[in-house]
Formats: sequence, C-alpha cells, structure tokens
Amino acid sequence: MSRPLPPVALTLIGIGTGNPDHLTRQALQAMRAADLILLPHKGEDKAELAALRQSLCDAVLADVPTPPRVAGFDMPVRRSQGDDYLAQVDEWHAAITRCWQATMAQALADGLQPRQAEGPLHVALLVWGDPSLYDSTLRIAARMQPPPVQVHVVAGITAVQALTAAHALAVNEIGQPFTVTTGRQLRDHGWPAGVDTVVVMLDGQCSFTQLPPALAQDVDIWWGAYVGMAQQVLDHGPLAEAGPRILATRAAARAQHGWIMDIYLLRRRSAAAPATAFNV
Amino acid sequence: MSRPLPPVALTLIGIGTGNPDHLTRQALQAMRAADLILLPHKGEDKAELAALRQSLCDAVLADVPTPPRVAGFDMPVRRSQGDDYLAQVDEWHAAITRCWQATMAQALADGLQPRQAEGPLHVALLVWGDPSLYDSTLRIAARMQPPPVQVHVVAGITAVQALTAAHALAVNEIGQPFTVTTGRQLRDHGWPAGVDTVVVMLDGQCSFTQLPPALAQDVDIWWGAYVGMAQQVLDHGPLAEAGPRILATRAAARAQHGWIMDIYLLRRRSAAAPATAFNV
Repeated sequence: MSRPLPPVALTLIGIGTGNPDHLTRQALQAMRAADLILLPHKGEDKAELAALRQSLCDAVLADVPTPPRVAGFDMPVRRSQGDDYLAQVDEWHAAITRCWQATMAQALADGLQPRQAEGPLHVALLVWGDPSLYDSTLRIAARMQPPPVQVHVVAGITAVQALTAAHALAVNEIGQPFTVTTGRQLRDHGWPAGVDTVVVMLDGQCSFTQLPPALAQDVDIWWGAYVGMAQQVLDHGPLAEAGPRILATRAAARAQHGWIMDIYLLRRRSAAAPATAFNV
Repeated sequence: MSRPLPPVALTLIGIGTGNPDHLTRQALQAMRAADLILLPHKGEDKAELAALRQSLCDAVLADVPTPPRVAGFDMPVRRSQGDDYLAQVDEWHAAITRCWQATMAQALADGLQPRQAEGPLHVALLVWGDPSLYDSTLRIAARMQPPPVQVHVVAGITAVQALTAAHALAVNEIGQPFTVTTGRQLRDHGWPAGVDTVVVMLDGQCSFTQLPPALAQDVDIWWGAYVGMAQQVLDHGPLAEAGPRILATRAAARAQHGWIMDIYLLRRRSAAAPATAFNV
C-alpha cells in the first residue's frame, strides 16, 4: 500500500569515536543539510551509545532553522549460531537494509518531504569512526533497491587514530608497514607476516593472550577502551606485564558501563627503533 | 645570549588532507588556544601547501580576540644522497628540532609571552593528515631538549580515509585484515604476505607498475591525488587498464600544479568478495 520511495541520496557521516569534538566541519554541514537522519538503536547494553548519538544530533541541529527529521530504528541482531560467519553477515545486512527502507517509508508517510522539491530525499547515517573501516554501512547501502542515486562519504576520526592520539604514539615505525586486523584473525592466523606493528580491532576476547609465549615476551602493547570519550581508559607496556592488567581493567570497565569498545596496537620490540611514544 | 626557553607544551594537530572542512572541532579549539603556531615552509614547489596552511590559520583565527602568533620557518631539506636512509632521517629530524627551537626562541625574543602567566608556552604544530601516520612530528618532539612538559595529539583525517571517502570504498573486506605500507616497501619486498588489500603511501614512483605481471592481472586499484582538496583527481579499475591511465594523469597533474601527493589502494580480485564500492 505504501508509495514507492523517491530517489534517495545517502550520506554516510563518520562521527569519530564518541567525542562530539571529533566531528569535522564537513560532518556538521552534512548533518545539518540532511532531510532525514537515521539513528540505529542497538539494544539495552548500548543504550549509552544511542543516547550519545541522540545528544550529538540535538547539539548539532539545535540552531538549524528547518532541522532534519531524526528517526530511530531498532537494529536487527546478527544470528551468532553456526560457523557460517559470512552467511550470518549477509542475512544481517539484508535485514538492516529492510529496516532502513521501512524507516524512510514511514517518515515519508508521516509527512516528510525532500527539502529540495523534485530533488532526491537526502538521508544521512551517522557512523562511529569512519565509514570505510570495519563498518557495514557502505555494504548495506549497496544492497538498496532501487540503488541510491548518490552515495557520499564524509570521513571521520577512526578508533585507530583516537588510540594513537591518546598515547601520543606513531602507528608506524619510520618507513615501515603495519597491518590492521581483527581479534578473530589474530587468533586464527597468528601474528601477520612481514610486519612488526599490528593494530587489532573488533576483539571481544583479548586475543593478545593467545600469542605464543616467546612472541608475547617480545611485544609491547598500547591499549585503550572508550578512546576519545570521557570514560577513556589507557594502558601500555610490555605485553607480559600489561596484558594481565588490561584483562582486569577491561572486565571492570565493562561491568561498570555495561558495554565496552576497545582497540590496541602491538609492536615487536626486537625489530623496533627506539620508542618514540610520549605517554601523556 | 638568548634566554633559555620556558617549559613548552606541544600540541600536534592533525588538519586532514588540505580541505579546511576536514578540521575537527577539537582541532579548531586547539589552534585557537595556542600561544604560538609553527608553520613549516617546504620550498618553492610546495608553496601552494604553505599558502593553504596559512589561509587555514587566517580563517580559523580571524575571530579570536587574542590570536596565537603564527611563525613560519624554513624546513631543512633531507640529504638524499647515499643509501643510509635511517641516518638521513635522523640528521634531518635533528635539524628540524633545531629549527623549531630557534623559531620559539625568536618569538619569545620578539615579545611573545605565554597566555597563562607561570604556565608553559603552548606551541601548536599543524600536521597534514594525522600525526600518527607516516609523519615525523612526534619523533621530532621526542628529541627536544629539555623535553616538552606535555605532548598532546589531536587526531586528523588521514589520506587513507580521504581516499576511501572519495571512492565510497571500504578499506577492508568483511572481517579481513589490510596492510598500510610505502612505495619503497612495495618495490623492495613485493606484495605483503597474508593480506588481499594494501594501501600504499609515500610513493613518488608509481610502484604499482613493478608488481609481477601475473599478480598485476589480478589486482584492482583505487587511486587518488590531492584527495579531499579542490584539485582532487580519482581513478580506479583493473590495474592493467587503470595503471597506464594513472601514470599519464599523475604526470600531467604534477606538471600542472608543480607538486603532487597521491595515495592508492590495491586489492586482489580473486580473493575479494563482490565489489562493494560506489564510484561517485
């Protein structure tokens, strides 16, 4: 019964890691220029994040004469049974696409009109960090039928940068490569070949504990949780000493806040140039 | 004859890739709160970049009641003879440290005083991209004698993110790792082990032309020059087809502007999931 959606122009806006001051001028302008901002809600344990995103919108849009409509939607939950990870992700992306389109349709049914008559509906999505890095929003956008008439990405501060900024640490040694990977990859495939520096994301299991002991003795870790946010917690040091501390700190912080997002950088000490990090 | 420097608090501010709208609110605040902003000048061919940085300061500081002093200094040139790359870098960093300290001393001799009486001198450095990524500013700060009493890093949008945003491209395949490396590393060590995605920076020699032919047939490239800036040029496609086009485009753009900064992402096609990039 619902009318077909008008053409949609999507803007994926990287908003950094939860610090409103990570917003770029480009992000602020893109938020203010949207017709509709879609806000995902991710269940009770992430209520703090949803509230943060809402307060970001409130603050940024307060002085806009005709502010965009902000519409929340409940994020589908990814099926986690089974070892068919890519199939789980595929189902989940399909479900999110349906949610997006239903939320847009509802907003139009409720009277939303594109600000530019005859123009597409400008829909913005706020993405933690940057839309390019371990985020599915671009992939979900690619599934929309009909496809968006335009997809515009606004870069945001990633957790990698928030971590290195907090530690005043260079991510690479001079002229050297580094690998960005996930906790699952580190567990399944071990230390990446050919690099002395590894940044690990999406690691709910403290996979640094599973490095072979001889390697672990040779590694420094720079760890952070809630990087860039008021709750930020940092630790660093030789993995053998800092690792157990981090496990305890992480468990306590998770219990306190009900959720945690963390990230860490590992560097082989034997290969590294003299340390160049300030720890402030 | 010069008085010793007062204690110095350094702020390294990532300013993104030349688009003033890449500045975060944190960067704007840090620029406005400084006593002194040091602006490196890098020789004639980079005059456009120096002008851009100066105009950024002018725009950001225009409405500050007591704006920071902005002091330019001529960047020393790195000796490029010899194959002792790390020694060249070391000499060069030492020379830059001396330039910083001389410029601070001159500003104080000219009457600059810390805004906070009894407080340290707050000195800000504007860094293209982000201070953590293939940038020497943190390493130079670590050489200061006496050391700064505080080093604070403000994260900025990197060329990696400006590239992926421009192509509306995810840097990683789902759950997969990627490596960030340099043109020199790609030439000397070939395709990094264990990854299907490689981001290449600091490549003045189009090192993608030196991949083995069989591998090159299997690789897609997403390339950009002046990413995020008004002059931005993009290209992408199978490396065998896009590579020669990029060589020609790059040479023409370099001739036109007198300088070029470019970056690219390579992805092995055989291993990749279906392409998820929009090309807008």
